[in-house]
Amino acid sequence: MLVYFTFDSRPDLQQQLLDQFPQVTFVFHNEIDNNVLAQADVIVTYGEDLTEDHIDIAQNLKWIFVASAGVEMMPHEKIAERNILVSNVRGIHKKPMAESVLAHILSLKRSLPYIYNNQRNRVWNKRGGNPSELNGNTALIIGPGAIGAELGRILQAFEVYTIGCNRSGEPAPYMNETYRISDLKNHLSKADIVISILPSTPETKHLLQYEHFQLMKESAIFMNFGRGDLVETDLLIRVLEEKLIGHAVLDVFEVEPLPSNSKLWDLDNITISPHCSSHSIRYLERSFEIFVPSLAKWLRGETDLVNKMDILRGY
Amino acid sequence: MLVYFTFDSRPDLQQQLLDQFPQVTFVFHNEIDNNVLAQADVIVTYGEDLTEDHIDIAQNLKWIFVASAGVEMMPHEKIAERNILVSNVRGIHKKPMAESVLAHILSLKRSLPYIYNNQRNRVWNKRGGNPSELNGNTALIIGPGAIGAELGRILQAFEVYTIGCNRSGEPAPYMNETYRISDLKNHLSKADIVISILPSTPETKHLLQYEHFQLMKESAIFMNFGRGDLVETDLLIRVLEEKLIGHAVLDVFEVEPLPSNSKLWDLDNITISPHCSSHSIRYLERSFEIFVPSLAKWLRGETDLVNKMDILRGY
Repeated sequence: MLVYFTFDSRPDLQQQLLDQFPQVTFVFHNEIDNNVLAQADVIVTYGEDLTEDHIDIAQNLKWIFVASAGVEMMPHEKIAERNILVSNVRGIHKKPMAESVLAHILSLKRSLPYIYNNQRNRVWNKRGGNPSELNGNTALIIGPGAIGAELGRILQAFEVYTIGCNRSGEPAPYMNETYRISDLKNHLSKADIVISILPSTPETKHLLQYEHFQLMKESAIFMNFGRGDLVETDLLIRVLEEKLIGHAVLDVFEVEPLPSNSKLWDLDNITISPHCSSHSIRYLERSFEIFVPSLAKWLRGETDLVNKMDILRGY
Repeated sequence: MLVYFTFDSRPDLQQQLLDQFPQVTFVFHNEIDNNVLAQADVIVTYGEDLTEDHIDIAQNLKWIFVASAGVEMMPHEKIAERNILVSNVRGIHKKPMAESVLAHILSLKRSLPYIYNNQRNRVWNKRGGNPSELNGNTALIIGPGAIGAELGRILQAFEVYTIGCNRSGEPAPYMNETYRISDLKNHLSKADIVISILPSTPETKHLLQYEHFQLMKESAIFMNFGRGDLVETDLLIRVLEEKLIGHAVLDVFEVEPLPSNSKLWDLDNITISPHCSSHSIRYLERSFEIFVPSLAKWLRGETDLVNKMDILRGY
């Protein structure tokens, strides 16, 4: 029985596995080794390193544990064909992500970039930076699922009025109002902060157009923490160059890594967060909290694992 | 009847006063003019510009409205001697201050300084920065009054365990536990974040000594948002150079402005916030919300104004 981690993890977490599962051989590797792959029964991966060829080589493979939420880069068809079980760590992102979104919002509202710049230049400037406040704002959350609920809960603690937009328009948790995404245009002008946490689907690709940004407040903060194809990059650049809105905080991009010659780097009304909003030094620990009981179950021959997913549907 | 503002304010707010009080002469001035001063019945000030001489000149003066909380720099004795009414804007700082504290905490936890630095250098680095999380942390709040309660409320929404330390040890709002400040040493080691919002009194001056910092976690964030004389500057420098704690966020300093040759500027485990944590573009608006009804009352001859204070006691 071989469990192949295609990434290195913390020694204490590795030791925990070795202690708890003496009957299992564990291999921890930063790069994929085809010899190990050929023998692996289980692969634990961040989901970005597996190709169709790898699946072909991994003839023993029965279960892929994805220590992330996104499976876009995995060879879906091939995995489905072989009927390989896939499970992920859905749900462990919501706290770090909600905290990242709040960190960015509060940093902008309370002028932290200005404070940091002055400190770097050893400048004491008590007055400038135009700090504003979050309380009393209205936030529009596009795609309020588990992350959106956590975000809405915290925003409401800051006395923010929350409006959700989802496919159905059915009430979503911690949203003061909820509307259909098809009605989005009717609500954009109310929002001080517009946050997308939409997944990538054919319906959400390039969903936001120039007219959507025209409807937003000039002071609006637009945040994309969902998927990069929500807005075309050239459109984003135009919107920010024309200062249609106040600031954009982007955690996701159409092309990642963002090319070093992208015009987005040149703008001063943008925060470029390199798809790291869910990262946390506690991430692996939490992933292991899901993986360890799942492995115990799987070794007993049970396959109704937590966060079992349909690789073809992507969730 | 002359009301003298010793600072300029927004034209729309000035107009509101002119419209509402046609019987009053208003003067708005950035610098103090002794001719105006001599005729002023009321002074509206940020509290940092009045000297004993000014009070002597202002022979008509009956009421000073302080558009800030701190009155340390005012000529207390002289004002008390003349029996001049003093009122301030106590309470309007709690929301912007609580938001600033949270902004700094979340920025550090979610590695925003690292993200900003990389962006400035056009570096896409998805992995680094060691982002951690706020949820599950313990915060120790020294001096939990109105600001502390607002802070505790929001911290608890982030699933932070809050410990308050006040003079009496009596339960304070939104604190999971409250102890006496005299017992502080017994609780410092529990805290991931130690926040002081103590005012300056003889008892709080240099309250925190080397041994207090020794008791804190190596990873602790220490925040001083009260008064600068809580810790001696040289002690702070030593603590940060020796990395006894993880990071300090200071909004207040023993000497302000912080001298440009202070060693504090050289440290990399400090955030220097130039006593601006309560600033807000909404500040004046809120001050006017207190001043306008107070002026109406005062013109009717009533003196039981909101936030009337004892200048000798300082609150």
